[in-house]
Amino acid sequence: MAMQIQLPRLVDDLESYAMYGRNERGGITRPSFSREDLQVRMRFIKELQDLGLEITVDGIANIWGRLKGSGKKEGSIVIGSHLDTVPNGGKYDGALGTLVAKEIIRTIIEKDITLDHDLEIVSFTAEESNDFGLSTLGSRAFVGMLTEDELRKAADSKGLPLSEALETVDGDINRIHEMATMHDEKKAFVEMHIEQGKRLESNDKSVAIINSLVGVYRSKVTVMGEANHSGTTMMPHRSDALTATAEMILAVEKICGDDETDLVGTVGKLDVQPNAINIIPGQIDFVLEIRGECQERMDRIIDEIEENWRGICKRRDVQFKQSILQQQEPTKLDEKIVSMLQKSAEEMSVPYMTFTSMAIHDAANMSRISRSSMIFVKSIDGKSHCPEEYSTSEDIKIASDVMLNGILAIDRQLD
Amino acid sequence: MAMQIQLPRLVDDLESYAMYGRNERGGITRPSFSREDLQVRMRFIKELQDLGLEITVDGIANIWGRLKGSGKKEGSIVIGSHLDTVPNGGKYDGALGTLVAKEIIRTIIEKDITLDHDLEIVSFTAEESNDFGLSTLGSRAFVGMLTEDELRKAADSKGLPLSEALETVDGDINRIHEMATMHDEKKAFVEMHIEQGKRLESNDKSVAIINSLVGVYRSKVTVMGEANHSGTTMMPHRSDALTATAEMILAVEKICGDDETDLVGTVGKLDVQPNAINIIPGQIDFVLEIRGECQERMDRIIDEIEENWRGICKRRDVQFKQSILQQQEPTKLDEKIVSMLQKSAEEMSVPYMTFTSMAIHDAANMSRISRSSMIFVKSIDGKSHCPEEYSTSEDIKIASDVMLNGILAIDRQLD
Repeated sequence: MAMQIQLPRLVDDLESYAMYGRNERGGITRPSFSREDLQVRMRFIKELQDLGLEITVDGIANIWGRLKGSGKKEGSIVIGSHLDTVPNGGKYDGALGTLVAKEIIRTIIEKDITLDHDLEIVSFTAEESNDFGLSTLGSRAFVGMLTEDELRKAADSKGLPLSEALETVDGDINRIHEMATMHDEKKAFVEMHIEQGKRLESNDKSVAIINSLVGVYRSKVTVMGEANHSGTTMMPHRSDALTATAEMILAVEKICGDDETDLVGTVGKLDVQPNAINIIPGQIDFVLEIRGECQERMDRIIDEIEENWRGICKRRDVQFKQSILQQQEPTKLDEKIVSMLQKSAEEMSVPYMTFTSMAIHDAANMSRISRSSMIFVKSIDGKSHCPEEYSTSEDIKIASDVMLNGILAIDRQLD
Repeated sequence: MAMQIQLPRLVDDLESYAMYGRNERGGITRPSFSREDLQVRMRFIKELQDLGLEITVDGIANIWGRLKGSGKKEGSIVIGSHLDTVPNGGKYDGALGTLVAKEIIRTIIEKDITLDHDLEIVSFTAEESNDFGLSTLGSRAFVGMLTEDELRKAADSKGLPLSEALETVDGDINRIHEMATMHDEKKAFVEMHIEQGKRLESNDKSVAIINSLVGVYRSKVTVMGEANHSGTTMMPHRSDALTATAEMILAVEKICGDDETDLVGTVGKLDVQPNAINIIPGQIDFVLEIRGECQERMDRIIDEIEENWRGICKRRDVQFKQSILQQQEPTKLDEKIVSMLQKSAEEMSVPYMTFTSMAIHDAANMSRISRSSMIFVKSIDGKSHCPEEYSTSEDIKIASDVMLNGILAIDRQLD
C-alpha cells in the first residue's frame, strides 16, 4: 500500500503559519523581509532543526534543510516552495508547497526510511511580486538568472538596498557567488502549489501534474500629460494622463480578450500623480503584464497593444514611454519527472490532469539547473491572492500522497 | 495720481515664501499643518507684527492681522487669501493674494494714510483640497458652513483628528463657536488670485473683476470587482475593478466634453487596491468632480453620468457606490464691491474683463457674511497647481494697484 502523510498535522501547520501577517479580514500580508516574514522564518528553521535537518541559508536568504540519504546516489532531491505572500493574500499560495514538503520529510523520518539521495526542503525568498521589482527573487538569484551586480543595485521604493534587507534574514550579498557551486547536486525539484484557476474544479479532479509554465512579459509604462487645475482648464484644453490611460487599459483588455490562445493581459498596479481631487492627472505609472503559453503569440499581442497605444496618445497629445521589467519565455518541464509523478498518481488510482501553469513559480527557474515538475491542487472557485483562497483538506491529502510516493519513485529511478 | 505698491518688495516676498516646501523640480508642497506650513505661518505672523498689526489666530487657525482705522466707520475691510498649496503646486496660488494684501497694508502704513475702517489681512487655513477632505476649510469654518460637530469628527487618512492638527498651529476646536461673533464687523472682503485659466491671456488683458464663482460637486466613488491572480484568471472570468473604472472615467470625459456650457468633469484622485502587479484590481476608489456655472445643468450632467455608470457596472458584473463629499452651488458676488473695483480700474485706464471664476476660492464662502469680490491676474498659458504656474510682475503690479485704489474707494464709499 502507498505511503501516506498525516493530514491533521499538515492542516495544523497551515493554520498556524497563516497567523503571521494576518489581518482582521483573514487576509495575509507577509512580504519577504517584513517583520512577519522574519518571524515565520525563525519558526520554520527551528522546526526543521527539530526534525534533525542540516540547515543552510544561502546568499539570497533561501532556506535549505537537508535529510541525509544512504549516500548510494549523489546529490539531492529538492522539494518546497515559498513562505512570502502578496498583500492581503491567502494561506495556501506558497505555504502549502513548503509545509507539504516538511510533512513529507517528517513522514519519511517517522517511517524510518533512508533514501538513496539526500532529500532537501527549500523555502525560496520573495517569490511574489515585491517592492524590489524582482518576483521569484530567491530562485532566480539561486540559478544565476539575476547577476550579483543586478542584486547589488536593487533597492525598494523607499531606497532600502536589497543587500541590507538580506542581512536581516541571514542572507549575504557577498555569498551570492557561492550559490552556483550548489547547482550540480540538485538532481530533481518538485514543487506543490495550488492551481489558482478553475481547470481542475471544472473537470472535477483534485490533482494536476504540470508539464510547462507560461511566459510572462511585464513592462513599466509612464503616461505623461499635463497637470493643471481641474476647474479652470476647460475640457478641450486638457492633456489628461488618466483619461488617456483609461483608453490604454481598455485596449489591453480588448486585444487580450479577443485572443483565442491561453493568453491574459492585466494592469494590476497603477499610480496617479499628483493624485489630488482638483488637479488633472499629469502622470500615470502602471505595469502591463501579458502571460501566454506561446512566445510568438505573446510577441504579436504586445506589438498590437503598442501600436494601439501610439494612436491613443497621439490623438490625445500625451506621451508614453515604457521599460521592460520582465521577459520570461514559456518553460518546458522535465518529461522524466512529469512521467514519474503521473505514474505515482496512476498507481494510487488518483485521476489527474496534465497541463500548463498560467502562473510562474520557482519551479520555472529551478528547471534551468535541475529536472523539475510541479503538482497542482484544486483551487475552490479559482480564487487566489485573496483571503478567499481555498483548497479542501481532502484534495490536499490526495495531492500530498501522490507527491510523497512520487518522490520515493524518483529517488529509486533517478541516477 | 493713483497710489502704487512697491513691486520689488512684493516679488521678493513671493520668491522667499516659495522656498517653504519647494522640491528639486521647483514645485511647492505645503499643505496646511505640514512642517513647511508651520514655518511659513511663523514667518507671516512675525512680519505682520513687525508692521504693527494686531494678530488674532481664530479657532480654525486662520491668521488675522488688523491695522486700526480712524474709528469713523465701524468694522473692517478684509483682504487676503491662503498660504497652503496643493502637492507639487506653484508659487502664486494663494501666496499671491496673501502677499499682495501684506504689500497693500505696508504701502498704506508707509504713506501714513488712516482709513475710516480698520483694514484686516487674513490667511485662511487649508484652502486647497487636503487630506481631511475639507477644502476651503478655514473660510467654511469661519462663516459657519462647517459645524463644530463636523469639525470635531474630521480626521485625516492616517486617523489624525483635525482638532489635534489645529493645536499645532495655534487653532483650538474649543474656540470654533467664537468665530460667529466676528462676522458682523467684516464689512467687505476682496481677494486677489491668479486666474488659472486662459481667458485673460487670450483676450490680452491683465486683470479681471470677478462677479460670481462656479458650483462644485464632488463625490467619492468606490468600484468593487474581484481581486484574483492575474495569470490563472482567464479574461472572460474576470471582474476587474480597474477596467470598469477606465470605462467610467471615459464616460465622464465624454459627457462633460459634449456639454456646451462652462462645465468640466475630472477624476484627479484614484487609488487601486491591492495595487500589485500580479493581482487583478479588486477595488478602485476615486473622486468625481463636476464644476459648472449653472446648478440645473450640473444636476442634469450628474444624473447622466450615474445612469451611464450603472450600465457599465451591470454589464461588467462589478458594483459601485458613491457618497457626496461636496455640493456647492454657484455663488453671486457683491454688485457694489464689483462695481467699485471696476471703477478703480477705469480711473487708472486699466483694461479689464468681468467674468465667473471656474475655481472656488475663500471669497465664495466669505460672501455669505460680507460683501465680497475678487481680482484675477492673468496666468501664463493657463497653468496652475503645477511648478510652471506663472504670472508676470507687470500684470501683478497692474492688478495690485487696481486693488489698492479699489480698497481706498471701498473705504471711502462704504458705510
